Amino acid sequence: MSTFGQHFRVTTYGESHGKSVGCIVDGCPPGLQLSEDDIQPQMTRRRPGQSALTTPRNEKDKVEIQAGTEDGITLGSPIGLRVMNEDQRPKDYGGGGGNIDMFPRPSHADWTYLEKYGVKASSGGGRSSARETIGRVAAGAIAEKYLSVAHGVEIVAFTNSVGPVQLFPSSKEHPSPSTNPAFLEILNKITREEVDSFLPVRCPDAGVTKQMEELIGEFRDREDSIGGTVTCVIRNCPSGLGEPCFDKLEATLAHAMMSIPATKGFEIGSGFGGTCMPGSVHNDAFIKAPAIQPGEAQPARSRPRLTTKTNNSGGIQGGITNGAHIYFNVAFKPPATIGQAQNTTGYDESEGVLAAKGRHDPCVIPRAVPIVEAMAALVVMDALLPQLARQAAREALPVTSKTVIEAGINVSNGHA
Amino acid sequence: MSTFGQHFRVTTYGESHGKSVGCIVDGCPPGLQLSEDDIQPQMTRRRPGQSALTTPRNEKDKVEIQAGTEDGITLGSPIGLRVMNEDQRPKDYGGGGGNIDMFPRPSHADWTYLEKYGVKASSGGGRSSARETIGRVAAGAIAEKYLSVAHGVEIVAFTNSVGPVQLFPSSKEHPSPSTNPAFLEILNKITREEVDSFLPVRCPDAGVTKQMEELIGEFRDREDSIGGTVTCVIRNCPSGLGEPCFDKLEATLAHAMMSIPATKGFEIGSGFGGTCMPGSVHNDAFIKAPAIQPGEAQPARSRPRLTTKTNNSGGIQGGITNGAHIYFNVAFKPPATIGQAQNTTGYDESEGVLAAKGRHDPCVIPRAVPIVEAMAALVVMDALLPQLARQAAREALPVTSKTVIEAGINVSNGHA
Amino acid sequence: MSTFGQHFRVTTYGESHGKSVGCIVDGCPPGLQLSEDDIQPQMTRRRPGQSALTTPRNEKDKVEIQAGTEDGITLGSPIGLRVMNEDQRPKDYGGGGGNIDMFPRPSHADWTYLEKYGVKASSGGGRSSARETIGRVAAGAIAEKYLSVAHGVEIVAFTNSVGPVQLFPSSKEHPSPSTNPAFLEILNKITREEVDSFLPVRCPDAGVTKQMEELIGEFRDREDSIGGTVTCVIRNCPSGLGEPCFDKLEATLAHAMMSIPATKGFEIGSGFGGTCMPGSVHNDAFIKAPAIQPGEAQPARSRPRLTTKTNNSGGIQGGITNGAHIYFNVAFKPPATIGQAQNTTGYDESEGVLAAKGRHDPCVIPRAVPIVEAMAALVVMDALLPQLARQAAREALPVTSKTVIEAGINVSNGHA
Amino acid sequence: MSTFGQHFRVTTYGESHGKSVGCIVDGCPPGLQLSEDDIQPQMTRRRPGQSALTTPRNEKDKVEIQAGTEDGITLGSPIGLRVMNEDQRPKDYGGGGGNIDMFPRPSHADWTYLEKYGVKASSGGGRSSARETIGRVAAGAIAEKYLSVAHGVEIVAFTNSVGPVQLFPSSKEHPSPSTNPAFLEILNKITREEVDSFLPVRCPDAGVTKQMEELIGEFRDREDSIGGTVTCVIRNCPSGLGEPCFDKLEATLAHAMMSIPATKGFEIGSGFGGTCMPGSVHNDAFIKAPAIQPGEAQPARSRPRLTTKTNNSGGIQGGITNGAHIYFNVAFKPPATIGQAQNTTGYDESEGVLAAKGRHDPCVIPRAVPIVEAMAALVVMDALLPQLARQAAREALPVTSKTVIEAGINVSNGHA
Repeated sequence: MSTFGQHFRVTTYGESHGKSVGCIVDGCPPGLQLSEDDIQPQMTRRRPGQSALTTPRNEKDKVEIQAGTEDGITLGSPIGLRVMNEDQRPKDYGGGGGNIDMFPRPSHADWTYLEKYGVKASSGGGRSSARETIGRVAAGAIAEKYLSVAHGVEIVAFTNSVGPVQLFPSSKEHPSPSTNPAFLEILNKITREEVDSFLPVRCPDAGVTKQMEELIGEFRDREDSIGGTVTCVIRNCPSGLGEPCFDKLEATLAHAMMSIPATKGFEIGSGFGGTCMPGSVHNDAFIKAPAIQPGEAQPARSRPRLTTKTNNSGGIQGGITNGAHIYFNVAFKPPATIGQAQNTTGYDESEGVLAAKGRHDPCVIPRAVPIVEAMAALVVMDALLPQLARQAAREALPVTSKTVIEAGINVSNGHA
Repeated sequence: MSTFGQHFRVTTYGESHGKSVGCIVDGCPPGLQLSEDDIQPQMTRRRPGQSALTTPRNEKDKVEIQAGTEDGITLGSPIGLRVMNEDQRPKDYGGGGGNIDMFPRPSHADWTYLEKYGVKASSGGGRSSARETIGRVAAGAIAEKYLSVAHGVEIVAFTNSVGPVQLFPSSKEHPSPSTNPAFLEILNKITREEVDSFLPVRCPDAGVTKQMEELIGEFRDREDSIGGTVTCVIRNCPSGLGEPCFDKLEATLAHAMMSIPATKGFEIGSGFGGTCMPGSVHNDAFIKAPAIQPGEAQPARSRPRLTTKTNNSGGIQGGITNGAHIYFNVAFKPPATIGQAQNTTGYDESEGVLAAKGRHDPCVIPRAVPIVEAMAALVVMDALLPQLARQAAREALPVTSKTVIEAGINVSNGHA
Repeated sequence: MSTFGQHFRVTTYGESHGKSVGCIVDGCPPGLQLSEDDIQPQMTRRRPGQSALTTPRNEKDKVEIQAGTEDGITLGSPIGLRVMNEDQRPKDYGGGGGNIDMFPRPSHADWTYLEKYGVKASSGGGRSSARETIGRVAAGAIAEKYLSVAHGVEIVAFTNSVGPVQLFPSSKEHPSPSTNPAFLEILNKITREEVDSFLPVRCPDAGVTKQMEELIGEFRDREDSIGGTVTCVIRNCPSGLGEPCFDKLEATLAHAMMSIPATKGFEIGSGFGGTCMPGSVHNDAFIKAPAIQPGEAQPARSRPRLTTKTNNSGGIQGGITNGAHIYFNVAFKPPATIGQAQNTTGYDESEGVLAAKGRHDPCVIPRAVPIVEAMAALVVMDALLPQLARQAAREALPVTSKTVIEAGINVSNGHA
Repeated sequence: MSTFGQHFRVTTYGESHGKSVGCIVDGCPPGLQLSEDDIQPQMTRRRPGQSALTTPRNEKDKVEIQAGTEDGITLGSPIGLRVMNEDQRPKDYGGGGGNIDMFPRPSHADWTYLEKYGVKASSGGGRSSARETIGRVAAGAIAEKYLSVAHGVEIVAFTNSVGPVQLFPSSKEHPSPSTNPAFLEILNKITREEVDSFLPVRCPDAGVTKQMEELIGEFRDREDSIGGTVTCVIRNCPSGLGEPCFDKLEATLAHAMMSIPATKGFEIGSGFGGTCMPGSVHNDAFIKAPAIQPGEAQPARSRPRLTTKTNNSGGIQGGITNGAHIYFNVAFKPPATIGQAQNTTGYDESEGVLAAKGRHDPCVIPRAVPIVEAMAALVVMDALLPQLARQAAREALPVTSKTVIEAGINVSNGHA
């Protein structure tokens, strides 16, 4: 089903060849100030060809709210969103002994869509196109607006590697960047503005971003493509989110990220590098949470009394958030559409050569950044609502010998 | 919610301190031969302390079918499964300046469960214990029985790395094992019997398994722990499984695997290594599928006419299976329970030292093998049923100009 | 959530004051011929002010397919549907000591929406307006097209009563019409064309429809309103549909019907009248199903070998369809919007008088007919898909001693 | 699926012939005092052969909590419940020219289960047996305990009619009992204790209950059966519950009630009788809610400022609760199992005679009372949790021009 989330539920529609793409966002809390201006910036960030956030607005992919708000306030009813399509029938491949009507494109979804649906669409695996991500980004922007306003949640993603060029390569000292102070410093402070100051690559290190840009250029010149990874941090996430056992927060994050086209891997906290760390190093000892500093904003939630000294867990323990930074890494394969000629086999089982025409994006990593952020926001939002219900339901009960009163999200601060 | 799957739906219950743990499996096809003997072997494989599959049956963790079958045949109604608990209140930590009533165990779920539920249970994060996986393994065994009987699906997992000791380390030539013939050979042929011939480590290479065993021994002696990875292959999976856009098969596999306790990462096909491969190498060109050989069993489904020359995709393209081997890798952190003394902070915010008593499993990788297999079976089964519905619904329609008749799972072979 | 169905899933959006109303239909089988022309007739039937199906098309409420089809064939991807809004801020009430900004309308949803969402919308209970039913009718038309083409299912609803004027009043002989041959004859033969030949009331009896028309006229003249009932029959429904225990087909039908605005009751088969029948009369004895007659169309499914002599069950036994006609009755209250002055109390707790301006529909029964049909189609479609999956999954298994081979929906006839 | 509810989710298993029946209750708020003693009374009330609530406890159908509580407090984790089966293979029918292995029982589910599942079970439609309702009643008792403790909700059902003997027959003056002061008085005051003081019939009127008892006796003596209706009232239900558009509270109540075996109809508020009332009479005008009286308990929620003068709506408007009493009526058919010989047709298509042996319950209405109460509790509980989430989410936002601060459930009173 084209639906994500149980409580903050996004349903998308649209191929590249229809009238429009869009989505319905159900479960958005009522009373949130929301207009197209809250959604459009991330739509624009995911567009190709951009050079900076401050670029004059690209009039393409303009989102329109159809319903669910009045006078710029959400009503609590489903929010309908729509973005018009231009004609985008895939013309990438053709000639050279064949075209995409004759050949399923290698490592695209043309063939598997046919196996699944048994009907042959002109767009091949239409719903697998990058255009499908428009609905995700639009819905994610709404989730993010709520999380930011109500709970101060901050979600920032950035390019971590392109091919073998990595921002924090694994080392003997730091098998995982989770113990690397330089990495943790970035997690603490990075903003979207800063990330976009490193356009077009969006890797927040002047030297590394330059190397990545050069590498991408080489692949472009060879009519080839290259993959990479995107790292994302979620700050100020309320504690207590994530549902045992099957919907642990890292599980729903993994689900969300691996549903983005072209992803091949996901790791949270110490990740794969963490498998090489001794438990005695990997364990995150508890410390007393620091007091709120004078001048520091009062948190929108009661802060947990304890926090952890290290954060190899990535802000999640036993599938439940502990209030520390959540961070994870997502691997994207090299784009399947390349200019080089490829020997392959057609629908009619005859061999031939396929080559894409025109210019193609040799690396999707920079554009994947806002998509990763959007999916992260959807996951957190969908985990927040049942926890608010649980907490409110518990608070309506008399205190028992087992009840711990101070736990949980403080939901009444908004009105203060 | 403690539920996995929409069509083949597993709901589990049980902490370590209650009367029993168990699950309800809803949506199992009627007419399947099924008894406790189909389930118990995987239950036994996940028990600690085993040395071989052929070990005299461990009478612990004995599963009992409560309902849903008659005369050893499934009725189509929910299957109730139950395993009795022995008293297992966690006694691991104690003395030495504190105990688990005073200290939340580092990198366990004690603290986050408290933040989530606001009640303090003697078992800490009870549902986060390894005992919770019993229901998964039992339910997975049922899914697996169906998939095996009806479609010849084979699911085999094995230990791929323990700490830095890897079966197929990344190399210049093979940034991902997805291009390594030795790795692909294992995927083609490995069986559970073979995996269990390498007990206790379950890594199917005599030299590597020995190194791993020694490494685990060292960590045990140091009262420390170490992580690792489990690789799993699914063979003969029907094509066409996986739902665009949000429930791509790699997304639901990632969800399933990252819901297993102690997991930190997931990668499919070429995975993280694939980010370093050029698209021209990574793309899986199509070839004509080989004919069925004389003597080879007739497949329970119509075999796709095309297959791919390479399989960096890991059997999934655009989120949908293409009939090639599905394979993926799961990272597990080092176990959090260690004998070494740990400096940490208590529920009352005072500092202290916590140390586990007795012997602890320094590495969970070998025991994780059947759990990974079980979750894989649940994912495939849950993806198969809606695809059977779609295909049957399509076949009841008149043929149109777009219809491709031969696509899809052949569901009538079973009776032949 | 604004979602109906698990397998054929409809998600709607839209209030009367936004840009558009619409829906996403997910799970439609691929390969179905579908265009706006399949949907528009039912949209038009639910419009007010119509006099016949053959009326020149009302250009209002024109539905547009946004995605999910190509060349008039469904792709299997979500179908986006949209209908533009005109400005429809409720202006019904005003003056006379108050207006709807001051007074919540009695027996409308203005007050309860406020209690629920905590935000005050200009449209009061916007999503509770009749305009919300547009998405239902559009989605239902798609379900109906599939069911008709693939399985020959026929769904026809008609006006059964208006106020006390009933087509088949309860009698000593027939406490329920379920035993009345005249009623059963209508169930056997009634068509939508015939129903619409009795416009504007849609009660298929010349004398009774006249009485109803007069009664409605009297209420209109008194600036009052009146309720009534709609009866619906589903013919040729495949057997085996409906899921024990909670999703019995009568339960999901009841859910669907009671979700239509202004409904107050639902009864299936013998219904409330059946409570007065002895079990010995109410029980539906089995008889051998009649053979297919020469000239009769071959059914798209294997017909059950047995049928029932009587049909007090309404085509459903134990929650599962048996292939006999499904019929049910839905009660609608009198419309809440009336011209008469009403004494009531305002948002500010002060008393006052509220009176609707202009002309109002004094009886919704005739317009409810296509809405009831649409919801019935959605229910059957959503029950059909999991049964197709179950059956296909079972058929892939070897035959056992308990297997009954001939049972079930024959899904392969479509291609014959 | 054998699952009810999205937020407070019950999954049941069990036929009459397996080891046990049971359920898993997921989503129960943590911190609720709960033991078997809270569940057993309703289990006992649904047992046959009882004469009073104060009867020495029937040791049959004894419920055991498997998990989810500790020291009598809910942990927030799934609650496993189990009731052992005795051997209950249906022996009701036999001899007289046939038995149930040869004949599907008329108006039972034997035949439709066969059509659905394609396997022949000794129990016929096993999951359609009354034994299946054990899980519902157990789960409902938990929901009810929470609702009672946290919100003071009271749910009471009683026998309203047996055959033609009705407590409040329709009259010219009162086409629906919704305007009958005697009926409304009962809704205000009736308790379970009072209902059970009218055992065995459970109709709260000495004269009517006597007539019903005699009527049931007549049917028993004739080896026949008779139906009836159960009315249920929910008092103190929080306002704001019920989800537009498809999950209106009357829709989910209808779903719940029509999923109980043997139900044929559902009506809420004025119901079918309301179709004969003019809108001017049916509309429920608003009045200022009465102040809390001295000595009256402080409500666990903020009471709505307005209420309605009449309550033809049955406490629900636009699908959302308004705080007034919710009341509804459920029709049950005469039991299908009767001692009289029935002419019918067998699995082998040959005609014959079937007659049940032994004594059978000629009327299920009295035993249905606790089942109706249980399902009502499940519906309210499942509607409460998302509303608590919505309200908490809204309260974390800054106040806007549209926000109405005082709306909603007061969840913090429990601690006061």
